[in-house]
Amino acid sequence: MFDRESQFRALFHPGAVAFIGASNKPRKWGSIILNNMVVGGYSGRIYPVNPAEAEIQGFKAYAGIVDIPEIPDLAVIVVPPAAVPGAVDACCAKGVKAGVVITAGFAEVGPDGAKLQEEMVRKARLGGMILVGPNCNGIMRPPANLYIAMPPVFPPPGKLAVVAQSGNVATSIARRIMKAGFGCSCFISSGNEADLHCEDYFSFLADDPETEVILSYVEGFRDGRRFFDKVREVSKKKPVVMLKSGSTEAGAKAAASHTASLAGSDLAFEGVCAQAGVIRAMDMDEMVTIATGIIGQPLPRGKRIGIVTAGGGWGVLAADACVKMGLDVANLPDDTLAELDSFLPAWWNRGNPVDLVAGLKQEDLGTSLEVLLRCPVIDGVIVLGIMPALPFEPMPRVLTQEYIDRRIASMIKVIVEIYDQFTEMARRYGKPVIVSSEMPFSVGDFESRLSIALGGRGCACYPAPEDAALVMAGLHRYARYVHGDDMRG
Amino acid sequence: MFDRESQFRALFHPGAVAFIGASNKPRKWGSIILNNMVVGGYSGRIYPVNPAEAEIQGFKAYAGIVDIPEIPDLAVIVVPPAAVPGAVDACCAKGVKAGVVITAGFAEVGPDGAKLQEEMVRKARLGGMILVGPNCNGIMRPPANLYIAMPPVFPPPGKLAVVAQSGNVATSIARRIMKAGFGCSCFISSGNEADLHCEDYFSFLADDPETEVILSYVEGFRDGRRFFDKVREVSKKKPVVMLKSGSTEAGAKAAASHTASLAGSDLAFEGVCAQAGVIRAMDMDEMVTIATGIIGQPLPRGKRIGIVTAGGGWGVLAADACVKMGLDVANLPDDTLAELDSFLPAWWNRGNPVDLVAGLKQEDLGTSLEVLLRCPVIDGVIVLGIMPALPFEPMPRVLTQEYIDRRIASMIKVIVEIYDQFTEMARRYGKPVIVSSEMPFSVGDFESRLSIALGGRGCACYPAPEDAALVMAGLHRYARYVHGDDMRG
Repeated sequence: MFDRESQFRALFHPGAVAFIGASNKPRKWGSIILNNMVVGGYSGRIYPVNPAEAEIQGFKAYAGIVDIPEIPDLAVIVVPPAAVPGAVDACCAKGVKAGVVITAGFAEVGPDGAKLQEEMVRKARLGGMILVGPNCNGIMRPPANLYIAMPPVFPPPGKLAVVAQSGNVATSIARRIMKAGFGCSCFISSGNEADLHCEDYFSFLADDPETEVILSYVEGFRDGRRFFDKVREVSKKKPVVMLKSGSTEAGAKAAASHTASLAGSDLAFEGVCAQAGVIRAMDMDEMVTIATGIIGQPLPRGKRIGIVTAGGGWGVLAADACVKMGLDVANLPDDTLAELDSFLPAWWNRGNPVDLVAGLKQEDLGTSLEVLLRCPVIDGVIVLGIMPALPFEPMPRVLTQEYIDRRIASMIKVIVEIYDQFTEMARRYGKPVIVSSEMPFSVGDFESRLSIALGGRGCACYPAPEDAALVMAGLHRYARYVHGDDMRG
Repeated sequence: MFDRESQFRALFHPGAVAFIGASNKPRKWGSIILNNMVVGGYSGRIYPVNPAEAEIQGFKAYAGIVDIPEIPDLAVIVVPPAAVPGAVDACCAKGVKAGVVITAGFAEVGPDGAKLQEEMVRKARLGGMILVGPNCNGIMRPPANLYIAMPPVFPPPGKLAVVAQSGNVATSIARRIMKAGFGCSCFISSGNEADLHCEDYFSFLADDPETEVILSYVEGFRDGRRFFDKVREVSKKKPVVMLKSGSTEAGAKAAASHTASLAGSDLAFEGVCAQAGVIRAMDMDEMVTIATGIIGQPLPRGKRIGIVTAGGGWGVLAADACVKMGLDVANLPDDTLAELDSFLPAWWNRGNPVDLVAGLKQEDLGTSLEVLLRCPVIDGVIVLGIMPALPFEPMPRVLTQEYIDRRIASMIKVIVEIYDQFTEMARRYGKPVIVSSEMPFSVGDFESRLSIALGGRGCACYPAPEDAALVMAGLHRYARYVHGDDMRG
């Protein structure tokens, strides 16, 4: 039999893949997924299996798995449900270690499907094969150029792993990650989880050097106790950000018919999160905001937050959000106020949030941030609006394309330098610095170019003040789990 | 004395503007705002007032307001605080009907500033002049090409009016509106509200033919009773979507030093919203989502929602969100199920959400929507994912620029047609149709071009299923206020 490690290696780093149910008909999943795999740049051997074809999308086709001239590591299975157990049998006989079962029509459609699903799993386990799915939209392993999935979405390699009990939600999360300029280490649409459960993927990802943060969407747990025990261990190694649906009766009903999930109560899940160190997100946007925001940040030792803002209203919104999320907006001690007095204009508000709104020099934002980071009663700092740190340039009366191009390039350069400076300070003081800022020049493809420039260095930026508070609260929650009693506040 | 109508006409449709404190120094607000006004395309007369200059940014400058060769309708005031009451005096003497006081340093900085502010208001009221501000970042009236504001942000004309007690938040809201492809009828940064309060702007906007929805950010109320009485009347004419901050102690403290606001409790505000028909938003993104989403939608007669989804997980998330926001996910009656049975594949889930995930024809999404709209126990429909209605096109192995351009153009054309079809159905059945969908081809400037194409027709599209529920809940809340006892559920 194969050990778990070699099975997962076969799943995510296959040297050869059997594609059972590959097709030349462009609208069939057996065609679309194979095409995505090729577009994605997979560099191993591909063996389409389809007795009706001699060649599929340029690859020699095989009548049966038995006919493939080597032992494939991985099988992708897209044949109709009734044929799946037989295909799994043939894979086991061949020595295939892992399978991705795309096919739907199992436990989610009723008792007959459930029986078929059980048969499939029994065969796989007897033969030493792990299975993803069924009723899933695939897997991706961007660092290995492996894109075996329904949607034509190709996240670049990165540090974020996505595990979701819904293919569409998995894709939605991946799209948000890409939009933020980040990439994925792994993408798993876990489907009905007949064999591997989400907690099995977590265990793999906990020791996966490509992964820094795990993002997971769950509709229900196959085995609540096992999930809890495993995720508690995983959280000690890496943060898990989780979105749980099905907490209302209507949602639970929809989840049952979707992936045959038993949803469980919201309260029970909140307890699981608290005890297992899981950072809970309430929707997909929150999930990606938290996951991209916490990458590379030092963990706070308490919940006392300093806020530097380039706009009064943003400061009010962030202060409200911090308190509502369980953080404290720190009272600044006299010596910190005196330090700020030494360079801020006389009419500054002398409080936290530190409102920089008027009469500033370009370096004052960074200096204010550093004063707060140095302050002993502050555990982390939120910066709202980097505009004061940008060089001033009057708005031209006419916007030429040449001006736009030059301005975009110079702005991106300056903004990246500001982020690098903030990152360096966060590391030096061992306190997280979370930035929320709108960008003053949203013309052309400025925003997507900036996201890529920042995301590539592991830096996230959100336009909403509340998002910065959300990330900080997530970091604090996770730190409390990791540091335990060693927290200050 | 001038009546309120002519004062507001002077404010938003001035034929001539005095710019008191105009400057040639590029970093001064007196230069930046004047420049923005010119860039924005204001076509009336501009009279810079500055005794030290002969010409400012190409305009003849005047030593005093008295020297201007006509009576300006509006005065923009950016001189230091101590000089503002005198400037207001001079404006009144000249016969100016309205002023925008950008200058800060009044009630928000303490008792001395408060006294100065009172003096300024007393003079203005004596002279029959209305004042915006002080401590604000300006006003915009895009339908009149009037952009008198600090940030270089130029929302196109549209149906959304923004009134905010924070200039930065006002700008943040405007940026979100533009990103959604929509435009503004009015933009008011109300600052300290020394003279005009937000409820005065609401009253103007209630009868303003350019405005369909009012978006408002408030930190506190100058006169709670007056606010409540006015907004209750305004809500009968137009929906007001409101974000209120300062509900925590830390937030209230920040609000006091920001715009001298008394924040008041969250619970009291919730009560005000319920009794005055205000649609409450919890952050800026929610605000813009709701405001853009409700434009042009028929009001629902009850809270029973139908959901058509192209992805199971999205359906679960939307069902949860509907229930959490006080809506019902309707149980489909037998004849509706039978109608859906007649064209959906045998394995469809036979429930609400209607999950279209497999084996569809392109027209099945529209047909399913229409079946739900026809269903007598459904008051509104949420559509999640328009992908099934798009023509299938296999992913090319290499993406050329020519392919991308052609694909973007053809996709936008098809998507606009789908939206037009949905809009027509919503009108025909008198029930709202809210669409949340990701877009299958997020390459190049596809998303911003699509936003502009859709926003220009008053159509909004959000990627998150919860956003559709949020818009529907907002519509339902507003409908309950407008229809009163005449609601079904």
